[in-house]
Amino acid sequence: MVLIVHRPKESQVSASILRRHISHSFFFQTAQAVLTSQLKPHQEKPNFIIKVPKGTRDLSPQQMVVREKILEKIIGCFKRHGARGLDTPAFELTETLTEKYEDTFGLMYDLKDQGGELLSLRYDLTVPFARYLAMNKLKKMKRYQVGKVWRRESPALVQGRYREFCQCDFDIAGEFDPMIPDAECLKIMCEILSGLQLGDFLIKVNDRRIVDGIFAVCGVPEDRFRTICSSMDKLDKMSWEDVRHEMVAEKGLAPEVADGIGEYAQCHGGISLIEELSKDPRLSQSQLALQGLGDLKLLFEYLTLFGIAEKISFDLSLARGLDYYTGVIYEAVLLQSPGQAGKEALNVGSVAAGGRYDGLVAQFDPKGHRVPCVGLSIGVERIFCLVEQKMKASGEKVRTTETQVFVATPQQNFLRERLKLIAELWDAGIKAEMLYKNNPKLLTQLHYCEKTDIPLMVIIGEQEQREGVIKLRSVASREEVIINRESLVAEIQKRLS
Amino acid sequence: MVLIVHRPKESQVSASILRRHISHSFFFQTAQAVLTSQLKPHQEKPNFIIKVPKGTRDLSPQQMVVREKILEKIIGCFKRHGARGLDTPAFELTETLTEKYEDTFGLMYDLKDQGGELLSLRYDLTVPFARYLAMNKLKKMKRYQVGKVWRRESPALVQGRYREFCQCDFDIAGEFDPMIPDAECLKIMCEILSGLQLGDFLIKVNDRRIVDGIFAVCGVPEDRFRTICSSMDKLDKMSWEDVRHEMVAEKGLAPEVADGIGEYAQCHGGISLIEELSKDPRLSQSQLALQGLGDLKLLFEYLTLFGIAEKISFDLSLARGLDYYTGVIYEAVLLQSPGQAGKEALNVGSVAAGGRYDGLVAQFDPKGHRVPCVGLSIGVERIFCLVEQKMKASGEKVRTTETQVFVATPQQNFLRERLKLIAELWDAGIKAEMLYKNNPKLLTQLHYCEKTDIPLMVIIGEQEQREGVIKLRSVASREEVIINRESLVAEIQKRLS
Repeated sequence: MVLIVHRPKESQVSASILRRHISHSFFFQTAQAVLTSQLKPHQEKPNFIIKVPKGTRDLSPQQMVVREKILEKIIGCFKRHGARGLDTPAFELTETLTEKYEDTFGLMYDLKDQGGELLSLRYDLTVPFARYLAMNKLKKMKRYQVGKVWRRESPALVQGRYREFCQCDFDIAGEFDPMIPDAECLKIMCEILSGLQLGDFLIKVNDRRIVDGIFAVCGVPEDRFRTICSSMDKLDKMSWEDVRHEMVAEKGLAPEVADGIGEYAQCHGGISLIEELSKDPRLSQSQLALQGLGDLKLLFEYLTLFGIAEKISFDLSLARGLDYYTGVIYEAVLLQSPGQAGKEALNVGSVAAGGRYDGLVAQFDPKGHRVPCVGLSIGVERIFCLVEQKMKASGEKVRTTETQVFVATPQQNFLRERLKLIAELWDAGIKAEMLYKNNPKLLTQLHYCEKTDIPLMVIIGEQEQREGVIKLRSVASREEVIINRESLVAEIQKRLS
Repeated sequence: MVLIVHRPKESQVSASILRRHISHSFFFQTAQAVLTSQLKPHQEKPNFIIKVPKGTRDLSPQQMVVREKILEKIIGCFKRHGARGLDTPAFELTETLTEKYEDTFGLMYDLKDQGGELLSLRYDLTVPFARYLAMNKLKKMKRYQVGKVWRRESPALVQGRYREFCQCDFDIAGEFDPMIPDAECLKIMCEILSGLQLGDFLIKVNDRRIVDGIFAVCGVPEDRFRTICSSMDKLDKMSWEDVRHEMVAEKGLAPEVADGIGEYAQCHGGISLIEELSKDPRLSQSQLALQGLGDLKLLFEYLTLFGIAEKISFDLSLARGLDYYTGVIYEAVLLQSPGQAGKEALNVGSVAAGGRYDGLVAQFDPKGHRVPCVGLSIGVERIFCLVEQKMKASGEKVRTTETQVFVATPQQNFLRERLKLIAELWDAGIKAEMLYKNNPKLLTQLHYCEKTDIPLMVIIGEQEQREGVIKLRSVASREEVIINRESLVAEIQKRLS
């Protein structure tokens, strides 16, 4: 389905004719007339649509301020935990990515084969990180990365779902004692979600080994593990009855097998549930499930020491989509504050997730050397939507510039003096603006300061120039003082500090 | 030319068999054994090459620190001049970009047609900005944007030329009095290049109208303007003799026409050259050239008021590649400090450039409304290479983490106490790390602090726990003090402030 209406070849031709026409008339036309005539080709292509690609968006200055505040908090937390920065290219060899995404081929943006390598836009920041570790033969690294990733999903633009979106990843690679890095990842998620003040949240935790153990002991055929897993993953959006129906009617699972899964999948709780399941006669048949349960028990102990155990729920319905997870998995959901007591808090969706992937780096290493990893990814788009909504609701005003001083004049012919003054301020590191007009009106200049919340105004006019002084005005209080021309920078710096 | 050796289909099949094998053995194998067996498929594809795409690179944590320092200075300057942030998608509708790049088709990365819109990666940040202005019907805006752009150039990796690279753009859109925004753009380039301490630099300035005026009065056929312009643009890398040879022998220009251009193109100077050319009997035949000269005269006056005139050279050889420029153009080059007096400073290449493009926004506007623009683009990759070289030469050490405190123990079985302690530090906003080991050796912990330049160490052992105290050690001085367990956070905050 091609959405663009193609511009006819003729318009390119006519543009080129036009250019020739422009040069031909050099001696007879003014520049202005030439520039006006350049508009002509556009009236010839009424079908040209100005838009951004489907599923993408621009961020306006207002939105950039919000975005940067969110990123600052997230990156601040990553640095608090000793992470180093990393950047990788926006695209990778297609082979690097497809290796990992056998099931999600359709979601990748491939680049056109223009001769050379076959390339695709990255789908997440985890695979490039694993590739980086293997390529540089690194055996351990604690890194963060903030960057855009791209997925060709059907975009539902309402709830912060885009085809281009920003992820903030923190990962710990290396062979360490069990569950210590895993616990830190959950601590980081708690710190970030608390810090962003998004309201109450809950982190669901499970373990891939427990998920697979349940499938195995319930009798799911091994070639159905992934598809049943993806049905189970819908339990946060659908009731068990609907999920069961999908498993049985659509995916052909025997009803008693589905019911077996259902018994487990609907369980959630804390340490006591872990203890209970460890003694479960059926599940304890699976060595892997027992290992998962053992690790989760240790994890909960550490989470209690970190003071965040009450934010964590061991949730057997959590499955996570990506294939590369091998151990603990987790997903943070925001809870709308319950309207009334007794009414269940409403889940408004996942904002952060991650888990342990001990086999991924080895897949890139020619000798298959293992580098166990655990990490998390913050979904900035969702958080951004919520913060933006909150700000709109509260009527909070966002300043999109940081300008501290405005250079104004009430008189004509003071451009040169303003230029000299503003250069002095810039050179002193002061954030300053002026209007790009030879003779702006004072009222226009005052309005600009008020509209953009510039706190200070420097005013120079005939009288000030004659007396070697400057008028300094506080925009909010409208209070004005006269200061010596030479002490201007020092005076402003004093007021701004 | 396809560089990737394709992995045989068999390995996917064997991976899937392997997965089945893993599930089949759930009850009999330990997780460890399963994870080890997962390495198997890799030994079957010896031709799989781990690399980043041609012309791209990862930025290591060391490089990220340098990169972030550079960006911080650049963005700081943009904000000092009152610019607002903007972000646009990495790709645009191909039609949005090709409209502008009729001559550079071959350099764009197109996305594969996977059904839907035809898309290409952005080539610069100027066209997306113009598209943004037209799409939102904005008549004025002062914005900055920092982001990656992509060009399929033959990469010469030695001098900081990549296919994926970061640009920092500042632009002023709107109808203003002549040359005031243009002068500010040049001021910004000076502030950034001075601030980054890259050594001496020079900004070459010219005007598209003067370039075209020269071609016209010298008798260049109009359909040769662009190709002759691109030859002229090589004057910073080639001698006039070589450029002349290209014009005459390769591009078929009459020798006397080339000589005419040469007379102008080799001129550079300041205000006096502007005055001289305004009176030049030949060039003054071109109205456009005269307008360009008039504007440049005003520009130089403003640059003098800004105190940067000595950094600017009116250089008639400057032509700039991109088609969209309509007025003043400029390009900053770094000058290697001359080895001896009298020896000409060596040009190490362009690090920033820009100009006026008054017709671009109108090309996106359905009604062809004009929004004049002027702006600049800083080439971060080049600057990055130079700063990196300088740092290597000086042996300057870069810290890649910001960790302030390390939590250590000299004894066994203190993991739980360390976890409680470090969570307390994190919750107080202190940047803290510990080793992910149950029982690390004290020496290993000390080494880690020294290697990563962590200034403070918190030590907890049996004695400290018994007495309700903590040992606080300054890593550099090795000085140790005993403090109360409860006053730990306060004491650390005091020392860090």
